[in-house]
Amino acid sequence: MEILKVKRESNVNSYAKAFPTVFESSEGDILTDHLGKTYIDFFSGAGALNYGHNNPILKKALISFIESNAVVHCLDMDSKIKEVFLENFDSVILSPRGLNYKVQFTGPTGTNAVEAAVKLVRKVTGRKKVIAFTSSFHGMTATSMALSGLMENQHAVNPSQDVVFFPYEGFLGKTISAMEYMKLMINSKGSGVELPAAIIMETVQAEGGVNVAGVKWLKELREFTEQNGILMIVDDIQAGCGRTGSFFSFERAGIVPDIVLLSKSISGYGLPLSLLLMKPQFDIWKPGEHNGTFRSNNLALCTANTALGFWKDDAFEKDILHKSEIISTRLNALRQQAKVVTDVRGIGLIWGIEFTDKSVAKKVADELFSQGMLIEVCGNNDNVLKLLSPLTISIENLEKGLTMIKNAVLT
Amino acid sequence: MEILKVKRESNVNSYAKAFPTVFESSEGDILTDHLGKTYIDFFSGAGALNYGHNNPILKKALISFIESNAVVHCLDMDSKIKEVFLENFDSVILSPRGLNYKVQFTGPTGTNAVEAAVKLVRKVTGRKKVIAFTSSFHGMTATSMALSGLMENQHAVNPSQDVVFFPYEGFLGKTISAMEYMKLMINSKGSGVELPAAIIMETVQAEGGVNVAGVKWLKELREFTEQNGILMIVDDIQAGCGRTGSFFSFERAGIVPDIVLLSKSISGYGLPLSLLLMKPQFDIWKPGEHNGTFRSNNLALCTANTALGFWKDDAFEKDILHKSEIISTRLNALRQQAKVVTDVRGIGLIWGIEFTDKSVAKKVADELFSQGMLIEVCGNNDNVLKLLSPLTISIENLEKGLTMIKNAVLT
Amino acid sequence: MEILKVKRESNVNSYAKAFPTVFESSEGDILTDHLGKTYIDFFSGAGALNYGHNNPILKKALISFIESNAVVHCLDMDSKIKEVFLENFDSVILSPRGLNYKVQFTGPTGTNAVEAAVKLVRKVTGRKKVIAFTSSFHGMTATSMALSGLMENQHAVNPSQDVVFFPYEGFLGKTISAMEYMKLMINSKGSGVELPAAIIMETVQAEGGVNVAGVKWLKELREFTEQNGILMIVDDIQAGCGRTGSFFSFERAGIVPDIVLLSKSISGYGLPLSLLLMKPQFDIWKPGEHNGTFRSNNLALCTANTALGFWKDDAFEKDILHKSEIISTRLNALRQQAKVVTDVRGIGLIWGIEFTDKSVAKKVADELFSQGMLIEVCGNNDNVLKLLSPLTISIENLEKGLTMIKNAVLT
Amino acid sequence: MEILKVKRESNVNSYAKAFPTVFESSEGDILTDHLGKTYIDFFSGAGALNYGHNNPILKKALISFIESNAVVHCLDMDSKIKEVFLENFDSVILSPRGLNYKVQFTGPTGTNAVEAAVKLVRKVTGRKKVIAFTSSFHGMTATSMALSGLMENQHAVNPSQDVVFFPYEGFLGKTISAMEYMKLMINSKGSGVELPAAIIMETVQAEGGVNVAGVKWLKELREFTEQNGILMIVDDIQAGCGRTGSFFSFERAGIVPDIVLLSKSISGYGLPLSLLLMKPQFDIWKPGEHNGTFRSNNLALCTANTALGFWKDDAFEKDILHKSEIISTRLNALRQQAKVVTDVRGIGLIWGIEFTDKSVAKKVADELFSQGMLIEVCGNNDNVLKLLSPLTISIENLEKGLTMIKNAVLT
Repeated sequence: MEILKVKRESNVNSYAKAFPTVFESSEGDILTDHLGKTYIDFFSGAGALNYGHNNPILKKALISFIESNAVVHCLDMDSKIKEVFLENFDSVILSPRGLNYKVQFTGPTGTNAVEAAVKLVRKVTGRKKVIAFTSSFHGMTATSMALSGLMENQHAVNPSQDVVFFPYEGFLGKTISAMEYMKLMINSKGSGVELPAAIIMETVQAEGGVNVAGVKWLKELREFTEQNGILMIVDDIQAGCGRTGSFFSFERAGIVPDIVLLSKSISGYGLPLSLLLMKPQFDIWKPGEHNGTFRSNNLALCTANTALGFWKDDAFEKDILHKSEIISTRLNALRQQAKVVTDVRGIGLIWGIEFTDKSVAKKVADELFSQGMLIEVCGNNDNVLKLLSPLTISIENLEKGLTMIKNAVLT
Repeated sequence: MEILKVKRESNVNSYAKAFPTVFESSEGDILTDHLGKTYIDFFSGAGALNYGHNNPILKKALISFIESNAVVHCLDMDSKIKEVFLENFDSVILSPRGLNYKVQFTGPTGTNAVEAAVKLVRKVTGRKKVIAFTSSFHGMTATSMALSGLMENQHAVNPSQDVVFFPYEGFLGKTISAMEYMKLMINSKGSGVELPAAIIMETVQAEGGVNVAGVKWLKELREFTEQNGILMIVDDIQAGCGRTGSFFSFERAGIVPDIVLLSKSISGYGLPLSLLLMKPQFDIWKPGEHNGTFRSNNLALCTANTALGFWKDDAFEKDILHKSEIISTRLNALRQQAKVVTDVRGIGLIWGIEFTDKSVAKKVADELFSQGMLIEVCGNNDNVLKLLSPLTISIENLEKGLTMIKNAVLT
Repeated sequence: MEILKVKRESNVNSYAKAFPTVFESSEGDILTDHLGKTYIDFFSGAGALNYGHNNPILKKALISFIESNAVVHCLDMDSKIKEVFLENFDSVILSPRGLNYKVQFTGPTGTNAVEAAVKLVRKVTGRKKVIAFTSSFHGMTATSMALSGLMENQHAVNPSQDVVFFPYEGFLGKTISAMEYMKLMINSKGSGVELPAAIIMETVQAEGGVNVAGVKWLKELREFTEQNGILMIVDDIQAGCGRTGSFFSFERAGIVPDIVLLSKSISGYGLPLSLLLMKPQFDIWKPGEHNGTFRSNNLALCTANTALGFWKDDAFEKDILHKSEIISTRLNALRQQAKVVTDVRGIGLIWGIEFTDKSVAKKVADELFSQGMLIEVCGNNDNVLKLLSPLTISIENLEKGLTMIKNAVLT
Repeated sequence: MEILKVKRESNVNSYAKAFPTVFESSEGDILTDHLGKTYIDFFSGAGALNYGHNNPILKKALISFIESNAVVHCLDMDSKIKEVFLENFDSVILSPRGLNYKVQFTGPTGTNAVEAAVKLVRKVTGRKKVIAFTSSFHGMTATSMALSGLMENQHAVNPSQDVVFFPYEGFLGKTISAMEYMKLMINSKGSGVELPAAIIMETVQAEGGVNVAGVKWLKELREFTEQNGILMIVDDIQAGCGRTGSFFSFERAGIVPDIVLLSKSISGYGLPLSLLLMKPQFDIWKPGEHNGTFRSNNLALCTANTALGFWKDDAFEKDILHKSEIISTRLNALRQQAKVVTDVRGIGLIWGIEFTDKSVAKKVADELFSQGMLIEVCGNNDNVLKLLSPLTISIENLEKGLTMIKNAVLT
C-alpha cells in the first residue's frame, strides 16, 4: 500500500509525514493504527475533534439520521435538520449569551468562511483593505492565505489581496505596544494606511504558537474598531466550540465581534461544516451572492445539532476548566525543570510548550509519536509543542499524556 | 419554523427561495417534504447526487464504516480508507483509461480545488495570468469567482485576480471562431495578452446554460495549449463522475488535461470531497503548501470508494447512454412543438431547454416545482431549464418527468 | 567621450543604439552630427517635432520669453503665459471645432497624462477596468505600460493594473470583426468582462505599426461607448497636433471623445508639455488630486502658444494633405515594385512600409541611417518602416527622402 | 482673463488657489505679478528653483544654446550636451564623493523616475513588495501615489501596487522605535511581511512636514537593508541638489544608496529633467525597457550642466550652511516667543515651523502672501509652514523674509 501511496498521492500531504503510519480506527481520545498500536490524541484533528473521535452520542444520532433516509445533500434548501439546528443554535448558544447573529452556511471549510467574510466586509463598507495580524493563520485559498502571516513565503504566488499586517499583542516584545501602534497608524493622517474594511483575528493564535490575547487588548481592540467603523471578524475556527473554555473564544473578554467564523469542531464529529455569523445589519447579501455545493452539509448538521447538548448547562465548561488547571500546573512545573523550555502558555485546552529551538520541539514530538501520542509543533519558528487533546479526554489519559510529555522533554 | 429561518438564516440562501418548502427525506430520485409531498429530482444537488439520494449500496457501506469506529477525521494522515480508495481509483478509473495522475485531496469543496489548481499552475510556470472562458462557473472564493464569467457583476468586489476571459466555443455566434480568436491573441506579439500559466475550462458548461463543447474544438484546444506550454485545467466538478456518459467528461475528445478537478459526485453520497489530479511532473508541491482541515474527508472516501463499483464494467455507461437517447428524442420533439423553445442541447444526462426568455423559463420551473419536480434554471440569461436527474433515475420516473416538463412547457 | 558614455549612461537607452553618432545641431528637417554629417529627419523625435527642429518663429518667441525674465517655473500657479495660451487654445483650436473641453496640465510627459486619465475615469465612473487595444502604446509608467499591448512581455513585472485587451480594428484579420467582438463581450451577460470605466485608444496606432482606424469603426466605437456609459479616452499624443492632417486625429471621424490626451508636439519645440482635455462634466478633480512639479512648464507654453499660429487658417492642413498625397503615390508605386513590401499605409504625414520580416526592415533603416536619414522601425513584429517627417518638411527634402527610401528598399 | 481660466482650466489646480494672482516675471528670489506687486520667494517652485529664478549664468548658457541651433529634442540619442553633462556630472559630483553610479535619463518628471526605480528593483530582485514610509510623498502616477503615505485617501482609486508602509523615524513618537519595528517585522518569520524588493525613502521628508531623519537611523537603515538584500532607493527629488547643505541629502550620513532619484532642481532653471542613478550591477535594463519622449531633455541638460559650476568647490556649501544658521537662530528664538509654535526643525535651507493646528498655519501663510511672500504649508496635518527659499537667496532678503514671518506669527 505504501508503494501505491508514493505513486498516487501528491507530495503536498504533510501530516502523513509527521505521523508515518496508517490509521484504522479511533474512539474518544485514542487512535489505533493498522498494526494495532494505539496513540493518545493530543492533536484532535487540528481542532476538529473537540468531542473526541466517534463520540457515541453523536454516532448514534448520525447512524439514525442516515438510516431514516433523511435528506443528506440539498445545498441551501430548507431541510428539517437545518431548521432544527438553527432553532437549537439560537436557544442553546446565541440567546443565553445575549448574541444576535444571522447565520450563513458557507462552503463547509474554514477558508470558505474566511473568503465569504472578506467579500462581505468589502461590500458592507465599500473599502478594500483588510487588516490581519502577525502569526495568523486563516486558510489556504488566495484570500485566506494572504491574510495568514504564517504563510508570508507563499504570498507572492498570487496577486496582492489588499491585506495589511499589524502586530498581534506581544509580537514585537514588550517595548512596542501593538495597540498603540494600531491606533497611531490608523488614526494618523499620512500613515499610508487607509481606513480598512475590517480586521480579522484569532483571540488565541493556534498555528501561530498558542498566543493567548489578553482581555484588556481584546477590549481595546473592540472599542477601537467600533469607534472607527472597522468591522471585527473573529476567526473562531480553531479556538471556538469550547476549546478555550467557553463556546466562543471571545466570551472571556465580554466583546461582541461583528462577524464570527466557526468550522472545525462545529459538527462535533469531524465532518465538514462552516458557519459565518454576522450582526443582522450586515446581512446585505443578495440570494446566491456566495454559494457552494456543500453548504449546510446535513450529516454535519445532524451531529452539530446533537453536539449542542454539551452546552445546555455549565458542566462541560467546568470540566474543561478543571482539566486546564491540571495542565497548567504540570506544565509550569515542567518549565522549572527543563532548560530547553522557554515558555509555557495556554487557556482552556489549548496549551503550548515553547522550546529553545525548532529541533528540540521536533525531537520531542517525534519521540512522543513513537511512544504512542499524536501531537504537533506550531509557531512562527516551529518551536512550540501544541497540546490539543479532545475536550472530552479522560483525566486518566490526560495525566498519562502529560507524563509522557514530561519524560520526552526531560530526556 | 419559517419565522425562525427568517430570523436566523442569512438572506444569501437561494435554493430555499426557488424550492420553498422544508425537505425531510429522500431516496433515489425522489425527495419528500415535511408535508409528505414528493418531488422527482431533476436537479441532483446541482450535480452532487449522480447516484441518487441515499443510494442503498453506499448507505450500507457508510453505516458499516461508522459503526466500525473507523477514523472519520484525520486530515491528510494516511488512513486505511484513503489507501483503499487510492488503490481502487487507480485500478478502476485511471489505469483502464491510460491516465497517470497524482491525486491531491484539497479542502472538500470544488472551489478549494480550483484555488489549489491556480496556485499550482502559477508555481509550475512562473507566470501569473490564467485564462477562463465566457459563461464559466468555477466557484465563489476570490480566485474561483474571478474565473467565473457568470459572476462578472461581482468581480469588482475583490482585487484583480489576474484572469483573462476568452470566448467559449460558440459564445460569439457563428461569425467569430473562438479557436481562431485564441490563437491570434495568444500567438500574436503585441496583443496585450502575455503567455498565460493555464486555461481552466469545463467541457460542458453547466451553470452557463448546458453548453457542450465540440470534440474538434477540445482537441484543438489541447493541441494549442500543449504547443504553447499552457497548462490545461479541466474543471470536471459538475460534468465529471459520469454526468456526460463517461467517468471523465473529456474522454469523448480523447484528450488528457494537465490537471483535472473532481468534486460534487465523487463521494457518491453528497458528502464533501474534492480531488485535484495532476500529471506527475507537476506535483511540485512541498508538504503543507496547500492544506485544509477537512481534506480527505474519510466518510466521503468511504462512499467514494464504494461508488467506484459503478465503473467496474461498461453497464453503467450504457445505461446513461440509453437514458440520454430517451431525453434527446423527447426534447427534440418538444422543440418542434413549442414556439417558446429556442434550442435543446445536451449530452449524457445533462440537458438544457433554452427558452425565448428568462420569464418563460422561470414560469416553467415554478410550475414544475408546484407539480412535484425539482429542476433549476441556468445560463447567462437565466433562460435555460437544466435537466439534471440522477444517473440512476428509473426509466419510469425519467419518462414521467419528461412528460411533466412537456406539459409545463406546452401550457 | 564614448568611453565615458559606456561608463555612465544606463544600458536602457535605445535610440543611441539605433542611431550611433553624437548629434550637435539641427534645423527644420535636418540634423547634423559631431562629424558634420547631415541627416534628413524622417523621425521627428518620435512625433515631438511636427514643426521641425528649432523652428525660427518659435525660437524667436522662446528667446524673447527667456530674455524678458518671464516666470519659467511656477507649477500650476497662474502665469501670464498660461493665461494667454488658454485663451488662444480656446479661440484657435477648440471653439472653431465646436469642442468644449476643460484643460488639465498634467506632469509634462505623455505617460503622466495617461495616468491622470485612468485615475479620473475610475473616479468618475466608480468602475475599475479599462479597456486597451492590441498593438497599443501609451507609455511606460505602471498604468500606461499595462495599457500598452506592445509591452505585454513586461506586464508581469508590476501588479495587475485592471486592464482588459480588445482587438483593434483589423488585428484579427478579416474574419473576426473587432466591433462585433467588443459588442458581444461587453453586452453579453456572463462574458466575464464587467462594464469598464473607459476605453483608451489611438485613432492611428503609431508604435503599433501605423494602423489607421477606419472612420466607420471610430464612429461605431463612439456610439457604442456612449450608449453604454463607457468613457472614451483618445490618446492623441503622437497622432495629434496635425500629424494626421487635422489638429486632432479624430476630426476625420466627426467624433468627440470624453477625454483627449496631448503631448509630444503640443509645445512645438520638443519641450515637455502634456495636456488632458476633458468634457466639463468630468472635471470632478479636487485641487491637488493630481499634481506634479513641472505641470504647465512655461517655456513649453510659450512655444505652444506661438505654434498655434499654424492653425489660424487652413493653409497648413492643405500643405500636409499635399505632402501626404506625394507620399501615397510614391509608396504605392514602390509597393508594386518591391517584393519585400507587403503593405503600405498611412494618413497625413504618418506612413508605414510593411516588410516581409523584421530583418528586412532593420536592414533598410540601417542603410538609410548610413546614407543620412533618421527613420525608425515599428510594429508588433518590428517589420514596419515608419515615415514621420516634420509636417514642415520641404517638398525637396520629402522627395529626396522618398527616393532614398526607394533605393534602399530596392537594393 | 480670470473668467477664461474658470472656464478652461481644470479644478485640479491648487497653487493657483493658494497664491491667487497672475505672475509675470521673476528674478532670483523675487517674483512679480501682473499688477507689479513683488513677492519674496520662500517656496522655490516646491524645490525646483534652488538656484533662483532666471539665474543669469544659466540664462546666458540657455539662450546661447538655443541660438546655436543645438539639438533640443532627440530622445535618448547621443547629443553633444548629454555627453558634456555626463562628463561633468561624473567629475564634479560623483567622483569627488567616491560614488560610482550609472545614469538613466527617465521621463523628465520625478514620478517617472520613481516608477522606473520600482520597476527596476522588481526586476533585479524578483520580489514584488516595496516598503514606503509614513508621511512620504513620491508623486502621483499610480505606483508613486501608492508609495505616498500622504496620499492614503486616494490609494483605493487604483489597484493595489504592492506597497507596505513602515513608520518613519519619530512617526510613532518616542515609545515605538521605527528601526526596531522594521527589524522585527522583516526578520521575524510569520509577520506577514515577506522580504521586500526595496525600501524607498526621503532622508528629509519635505511634503511630510520637514522631518529630518537622524544620521544614526539612516546608517542603521542602510546597514539593515544591506544585510537583508533589500535595495535602498533614496528619493532625492526635493532634498537633493544642495537643499540640505550638500549635493546629495544622504552625504551627511555617509551612506551609499543603491538607487538615487534626482529631479526638480537638477536642471537648475526649473526645466523638466529627471535622473535615476543606480549602482552599476543593477543596470540590468535592456534597451528601451523604460523610455519616454522627453527623456534627456536637452534644454534642461544645458542648464543642468552649467549649474554644476556651483559645486566645483565648497563655497556654495558654506554659504548654505551660513544661511541655515541664520534661520536656525531666528526660528528657535521665535519658538520661545510664540505659543502657537510647537516645533521648529530643519536642515540646510529647508525648515519647518510647526503650529498648534492647521488653521493657524494657513492664516500665517495667507497673511504672508498678502504681504508679498510665497510660502506654503505642508505636513500630514497641514500645520507646518515650510521655508524653502532659493539656496541663492540674498542675506538681505532672507533676513527680511524671516522678519515678515516673525511678524505674521506673532500677530
